[in-house]
Amino acid sequence: MNKVTPRTLPGFMELLPQDQILFNNMYDRIRKVYERFGFLPIDTPTIELSEVLLAKAGGETEKQIYRFNKGDSDLSLRFDLTVPLARYVAEHYNDLIFPFKRYQMSKVFRGERPQKGRFREFYQCDIDVIGQEALDLMFDAEIPTVIYNVFQELNIGKFTIRINNRKILNGFFESLNLINEASDILRVIDKIDKIGSREVAQELLDFGIAEESVDKIMNFISINGNNDEIITSLKDLNIDNEQFNHGIYEINEVINGMRDFSVPEDYFKIDLTIARGLDYYTGTVYETILDEYPRLGSICSGGRYENLTAYYTDEKLPGIGISIGLTRLFSQLKEIELIENSKRSLTQVLVIPFDRKDMNYTLNIASSIRNAGINTDVYYQNKGMKQKMKYADRLDIPYVILVGENEILENKATLKNMLTGEQDLLSIEEIVERLTK
Amino acid sequence: MNKVTPRTLPGFMELLPQDQILFNNMYDRIRKVYERFGFLPIDTPTIELSEVLLAKAGGETEKQIYRFNKGDSDLSLRFDLTVPLARYVAEHYNDLIFPFKRYQMSKVFRGERPQKGRFREFYQCDIDVIGQEALDLMFDAEIPTVIYNVFQELNIGKFTIRINNRKILNGFFESLNLINEASDILRVIDKIDKIGSREVAQELLDFGIAEESVDKIMNFISINGNNDEIITSLKDLNIDNEQFNHGIYEINEVINGMRDFSVPEDYFKIDLTIARGLDYYTGTVYETILDEYPRLGSICSGGRYENLTAYYTDEKLPGIGISIGLTRLFSQLKEIELIENSKRSLTQVLVIPFDRKDMNYTLNIASSIRNAGINTDVYYQNKGMKQKMKYADRLDIPYVILVGENEILENKATLKNMLTGEQDLLSIEEIVERLTK
Repeated sequence: MNKVTPRTLPGFMELLPQDQILFNNMYDRIRKVYERFGFLPIDTPTIELSEVLLAKAGGETEKQIYRFNKGDSDLSLRFDLTVPLARYVAEHYNDLIFPFKRYQMSKVFRGERPQKGRFREFYQCDIDVIGQEALDLMFDAEIPTVIYNVFQELNIGKFTIRINNRKILNGFFESLNLINEASDILRVIDKIDKIGSREVAQELLDFGIAEESVDKIMNFISINGNNDEIITSLKDLNIDNEQFNHGIYEINEVINGMRDFSVPEDYFKIDLTIARGLDYYTGTVYETILDEYPRLGSICSGGRYENLTAYYTDEKLPGIGISIGLTRLFSQLKEIELIENSKRSLTQVLVIPFDRKDMNYTLNIASSIRNAGINTDVYYQNKGMKQKMKYADRLDIPYVILVGENEILENKATLKNMLTGEQDLLSIEEIVERLTK
Repeated sequence: MNKVTPRTLPGFMELLPQDQILFNNMYDRIRKVYERFGFLPIDTPTIELSEVLLAKAGGETEKQIYRFNKGDSDLSLRFDLTVPLARYVAEHYNDLIFPFKRYQMSKVFRGERPQKGRFREFYQCDIDVIGQEALDLMFDAEIPTVIYNVFQELNIGKFTIRINNRKILNGFFESLNLINEASDILRVIDKIDKIGSREVAQELLDFGIAEESVDKIMNFISINGNNDEIITSLKDLNIDNEQFNHGIYEINEVINGMRDFSVPEDYFKIDLTIARGLDYYTGTVYETILDEYPRLGSICSGGRYENLTAYYTDEKLPGIGISIGLTRLFSQLKEIELIENSKRSLTQVLVIPFDRKDMNYTLNIASSIRNAGINTDVYYQNKGMKQKMKYADRLDIPYVILVGENEILENKATLKNMLTGEQDLLSIEEIVERLTK
């Protein structure tokens, strides 16, 4: 028979089981924290009508979409979880309870040019809160608090949640009469970590911004200090612009909210240079940086939007949300060896009968242990003891139980610790006790 | 702005959060049992190369596939988890430990005509074991044992796992010189529950089967009794066919193995009429029926195959597996109201401040309770108390904690049971104790 070479597409992550266990462990811990804060699960279809999914899209996004026809239908694979959320909220509006706090942790698809650390199919782990007409500013503090708890839970080292407010940026550029140039200016500012402030100033001048305005911009983005100092400096600018000052009020509320949530002060910081590319953010925006690995970029980003469902409904449904790109994060953390490697086996114990005829006793032991909530595998294959032990060893199973004539006679079994090599003849009750402690 | 009607495609299940919680609960419990038996997780890509995914497919399956081009690539969405498993095992052969026990619980895609109870995008929850060269018959007993434990865990009422062996069927038809007609005969036999045995016999005659053979077939499929009686009756047929007799040996081993696993005898039954359509099954086959709802058909099916990876590799990798179609099962169980409805909220308690100024105290309470592992939501919106309580009520959150001036003064909070209406002023420690007991 002609063989087809078994292979996956570039840009599609596939893991061996022991890495999959680590990945799932991260997934489960993120989910646990999301649920700990009262977020509800939803699971939207992978395939949607292009008309619905692309109501808003355009430009770069649209080019990346996996779009195809089936029968008469023009279909697309979801490219994020935010547009499906907007559709979901608009469609199920009358059946939802607001504020609607939802999480979704699913694969999304973007057919971009594959490159290191970029995936065409990847998990996003999103939380969003959608309000009716209004959504309390406390949610702007809750969202980064959840993220603080997630990354503490994942134990991936020191990180900083950077916070800004689009109203501050928009108000500031309004006050300079540069609101139309704002997104271009922000794009230049965004390069400051790479090219330095002198070069940024030059590019802004080259762009045609008046020297006086460039000075003000450079002065604005150089504001620094602790969170309270930044807010004081912003107020001291004495800019007479309603949006700007409302932005200062909001960011102050968010900062104080996070303090009420007991998030340690060194885990969040106002950063006036972040804006987030997406044009729908209207208030608070977030990015998250691993302090030791800034070159990884933001590992978790989001913000507040006023008009997410505008393409589907006239209801005013403001929202705020944040997203962890888990596939990318996992691959990055693996590369810098920041993933806890201790739990590469879900199975706690492998029961090995010396001989086929010991099977009934072996299975009874396995059942007793499973009934105590312990993940238990049994070795059935007709192989030598060396092979049987190798199976446990290669799968990182921490314990082995050996069953032979002697064990059966004594109504016990031999428990062996695979790490230390220690082994003891024990009753089932004693084995369960050892394995659950 | 022109609005797009927010809608999903027919045949794509989407749930409201409270049903999603029930669905996820089933998903998690299935996963827990799979892991309890030592199965390892994998997560293959949703999109694969058509050349790889369709190496074997043809006919009806191929027509249902979502297939499309992106750039130069001919791509398909996976239509089951078995072909990706075959590809995975062949591709990662040198990195896997055999016997390779894996579970995968993911969405698959089939663009069939949508009809009641049929889905185009649905979850399959599969376990398979792949051996090198040989795979012990104990796995044929373990697989249905896992399924027995899954359905016990799901608490969906009495069910029966029906077991047959293709070698018995093939050997039997060989002995009648009807091996080429076997699949047609089996298709007729499959209708016996609907049309009765008289009609089945007539159809077989119409099909051109000799009367003597039809009698033997009808005699064969009418064999009944308990498992041991059926095996005795099969032996009593005294058919001189090696395959047939090996099939009897195998099914006897499987039955005895399940007894060793302590599966109660009334939960599994030899059924000589089941064959499973897929042509790759070569030994044990399974179907699972809810005793009270036979019209739902098989809710969990599978079997043993010798040649799954033949399209990708020359290695001989026999396997055995079974699959639960969870999306369909969930929708069926919901319809017959067999889903445990008790846990429609993941959130155990909603903390409600009377007033904005109570927020700091409120958040401290929420943090303390969350730290005790309790899923806790907080109400922030500026609404009346009636609205706040309604949020908890509509989300089926079982407890509410009220925080006002009085509570803050006493350094306590009021815990209210939403079901009974009881409420008590308690310390945080007392609240945690009540909620965790």
